[in-house]
Amino acid sequence: MSTDRFPEFRALHHGGTPLLLPNAWDHASGAALAAAGFAAVGTTSLGVAAAAGKPDAAGGTRAETLTLARRLGTLPVPVTVDVEGGFSEHPGEVAELAAELASFGIAGVNIEDGRSDGSLAPRSHLAEVVAAVKAAAPRLFVNARTDTFWLAGGPDPLREAVARTQAYAAAGADGVFVPGVADPGDVRTLVRECGVPLNVLFLPGRHTLDDLAGLGVARVSTGSLLFRTALHAAVAAAVAVREGTAEADPAVPSYADVQRMS
Amino acid sequence: MSTDRFPEFRALHHGGTPLLLPNAWDHASGAALAAAGFAAVGTTSLGVAAAAGKPDAAGGTRAETLTLARRLGTLPVPVTVDVEGGFSEHPGEVAELAAELASFGIAGVNIEDGRSDGSLAPRSHLAEVVAAVKAAAPRLFVNARTDTFWLAGGPDPLREAVARTQAYAAAGADGVFVPGVADPGDVRTLVRECGVPLNVLFLPGRHTLDDLAGLGVARVSTGSLLFRTALHAAVAAAVAVREGTAEADPAVPSYADVQRMS
Repeated sequence: MSTDRFPEFRALHHGGTPLLLPNAWDHASGAALAAAGFAAVGTTSLGVAAAAGKPDAAGGTRAETLTLARRLGTLPVPVTVDVEGGFSEHPGEVAELAAELASFGIAGVNIEDGRSDGSLAPRSHLAEVVAAVKAAAPRLFVNARTDTFWLAGGPDPLREAVARTQAYAAAGADGVFVPGVADPGDVRTLVRECGVPLNVLFLPGRHTLDDLAGLGVARVSTGSLLFRTALHAAVAAAVAVREGTAEADPAVPSYADVQRMS
Repeated sequence: MSTDRFPEFRALHHGGTPLLLPNAWDHASGAALAAAGFAAVGTTSLGVAAAAGKPDAAGGTRAETLTLARRLGTLPVPVTVDVEGGFSEHPGEVAELAAELASFGIAGVNIEDGRSDGSLAPRSHLAEVVAAVKAAAPRLFVNARTDTFWLAGGPDPLREAVARTQAYAAAGADGVFVPGVADPGDVRTLVRECGVPLNVLFLPGRHTLDDLAGLGVARVSTGSLLFRTALHAAVAAAVAVREGTAEADPAVPSYADVQRMS
């Protein structure tokens, strides 16, 4: 738990090929992803919220996020935690949270400018938060996310994303995350302009990991995809029993396999 | 949350066709199963434990089980909660736990005689626990589980299972659960001898729901199958991104779909 994961995690953003970061929502998913050979694991705020029966991106899962972080801090790979907007409007409180996460062995955080009402926080706000977090936990990899492509990014989401990623990088962000960007030209522009490693969200059917590598992306997240896929698979398995079509699948881990992951 | 689910859940054990009970481990899985039309939802102690990074059947997840029960008590269908051996050697403490679960809107509990060291609790012990729970929460559907087919059931697990299910029914159990039984003759014997609705574990590839209906089984649980299937699906989705084979799957719920379940 006290292993120093900071340099290892940071180096994964500068390896020449993108860091593929799968996103966990509980200890089992994190442990299984680490066991499957992924070099690092992130979290999905949608998964954490939905597991608790709460809405995502509404700032209501601070306690669940801390509980999960404490559990994932023991994984054998670096872990980065999504803290939505930081669960507070006060940069100092977000910084305290980040320092607590670092004390659990967490290597990085994602902090976003999207707000639950669909608006974007002022650029200066997330810049202040980033600066406060870096002051409190200098070695933590701070990935600043801008939601201009998802929310009210104005008439030119790309231009706004460039301005915001530059502002966040200037405030000390170690990387920036622009979910929703898909156009290769837009990705190239962001890689060129943002000044720090660029993280994008993997969009199934829109691109491959190789495509994104070719555009210079440093980190690719799966976001809530794995959680949503798991949820679908669970329901489908139950429906198969109901419909009489269930078959044994040797690829599914056994009871003993899962017990060994605890 | 205060809806009285007891009669509804009880009736599902006497409907002429088996109650298929899919097992959830968090709010999202429970809500998704309820939305898929299952008449009731159970929990999987393996899933609850693994989600928290703890071993199953070791008595260490009392708090996590209570937290989950509180969340699932708001589902629109009856919910039954697996409490392993009751998280205490004292029948009075197990009864207090059961009463607390009932106060959350939970309709039933599973209590088992298997112990973490692989032994079976004395028959009289689980009978005392069942009696204490029924005294404290008379309307709660108490499903008493015997692990004779999994653990040290002696030279004749069926004979031991019959004796135990009869003892638990005599102590007030509303139903009995014999996981691991697969031989149709054994199932028939248990249905005939146990005196209350028989619950068996669904074993993929060994039988269908129709097979079990034909043998007179009243309730069929999926145990940890859905949890393990979900875990596999999550890892497989991440591996597909890594290998460049990921495709969009329209059957997977969207972000908005999951948000609506909270």
